[in-house]
Amino acid sequence: AAMAGCGWARAVRGLLLDVSGVLYDSGPDGGVPIAGSVEAVRRIKASGLKLQLCTNETQATRESFVRKLRAMGFDVSVAEVTAPAPAACGLLKERGLRPHLLVHDDLVPEFAEIDKTNPNCVVLGDAAENFTYANLNEAFRLLIGMEKPVLISLGKGRYYKETDGLKLDVGAYMKALEYACDIQAEVVGKPAKRFFESALAELGVPAEQAIMIGDDIVSDVGGAQQCGMRALQVRTGKYRPSDEKHPEVKPDAYVNNLAEAVDIILQQL
Amino acid sequence: AAMAGCGWARAVRGLLLDVSGVLYDSGPDGGVPIAGSVEAVRRIKASGLKLQLCTNETQATRESFVRKLRAMGFDVSVAEVTAPAPAACGLLKERGLRPHLLVHDDLVPEFAEIDKTNPNCVVLGDAAENFTYANLNEAFRLLIGMEKPVLISLGKGRYYKETDGLKLDVGAYMKALEYACDIQAEVVGKPAKRFFESALAELGVPAEQAIMIGDDIVSDVGGAQQCGMRALQVRTGKYRPSDEKHPEVKPDAYVNNLAEAVDIILQQL
Repeated sequence: AAMAGCGWARAVRGLLLDVSGVLYDSGPDGGVPIAGSVEAVRRIKASGLKLQLCTNETQATRESFVRKLRAMGFDVSVAEVTAPAPAACGLLKERGLRPHLLVHDDLVPEFAEIDKTNPNCVVLGDAAENFTYANLNEAFRLLIGMEKPVLISLGKGRYYKETDGLKLDVGAYMKALEYACDIQAEVVGKPAKRFFESALAELGVPAEQAIMIGDDIVSDVGGAQQCGMRALQVRTGKYRPSDEKHPEVKPDAYVNNLAEAVDIILQQL
Repeated sequence: AAMAGCGWARAVRGLLLDVSGVLYDSGPDGGVPIAGSVEAVRRIKASGLKLQLCTNETQATRESFVRKLRAMGFDVSVAEVTAPAPAACGLLKERGLRPHLLVHDDLVPEFAEIDKTNPNCVVLGDAAENFTYANLNEAFRLLIGMEKPVLISLGKGRYYKETDGLKLDVGAYMKALEYACDIQAEVVGKPAKRFFESALAELGVPAEQAIMIGDDIVSDVGGAQQCGMRALQVRTGKYRPSDEKHPEVKPDAYVNNLAEAVDIILQQL
């Protein structure tokens, strides 16, 4: 009987998983796995389904991000992570852009091979403690001094939850700079279509055979559906009951957590 | 011949003056008077014209602001200053609001008589060095935790110029919080109509007999014109040549500086 409404789970060959709020709850000391998620990732892999993590995480390199996840017990590798910084590097090279970085210290190594002299754009990530008054003024002055200011934002999240409380996300600071300079940022990361398409390419499965699972109704669910994927919202992480009355986005299903989503999907295989 | 195009200067009984960028250029060490402005204020007073300073300054109490101006040689008094913080206090009392303040330390005494326990709104000013990551997160958490978040912003300027460079103004941080909470701030200060009306009441002159003189094409010129005043833009302070091609706002005249505006106005008396 529980299966009656689960047509969305049929003909799946791969899963895109958001990470923070789905695999674990992040916090200043690293974070804690969400109950059942470690086992759920193991079961996905054992089933033969393909899996790719699709994250807007910009507080660390993929290498250290994966180290953190593995320390929590998740069986994942660097190649299984699609993240905004590498995507931004591709875009910078393509267009000959030299960034000024306003990002988290731990993300800087992702840009090691990018020329950063004499900047002609600003790349904004979730800089956290680096979002100081001085650093924001510096980024602003560089932008307003450009003939055609280019602001590349690694995501446009409004806020996220850490174990010690809610934090403003990169989107809030993006809006501050957009307003001050009267410009529009280019967003790399979810919900940008191009970013989901990269994740699907790395997953190796077409959109109609993939399911996105995330806690963010707009970035994860709305973004994935725009690309032709099915998308589930978990009731963990930043999920709020009011999400279920969202005026524009309706997930293909709600699940209590990743473990429940995997239960249902594996029963359909 | 120079008078041919100066019909705007006729039948004037009072002047509203923006301060930063018109009387002086502000800076971390206080600022420096703009050439001719000290003498221009003296000549306005000697002429019998009424004068009121109409400022979005929120980095200091009116008392210390006036002390700073007097030290630069300007003959002005506290009663001649219309500023956002006192206007916000009126609004807070009227509506029984208890603010959490994210403002400059030196502005706090303006709110001495306001109950700030158990806050049910956030008041945002140009907090400058107080715009830290921690303080912004704190203001955000308070707002997102309210059933109906109320954000009162003391102005919505994009940026301003200090002697050591451009700085993000309160409007940028307002946009960050608006976006994160999905709300609209209530703006106290220019260009709000209610704020100009208070300034006119304190000036004691009806809109059609008053001229606003400012360096901000939108806040000063556009705002004053919306209230039925004539408005001049000075080519000092944050003025940029591109302002003269603004798609929506056209001042009644451009003047090189306050001294030139006063020359023309006094010749019409």
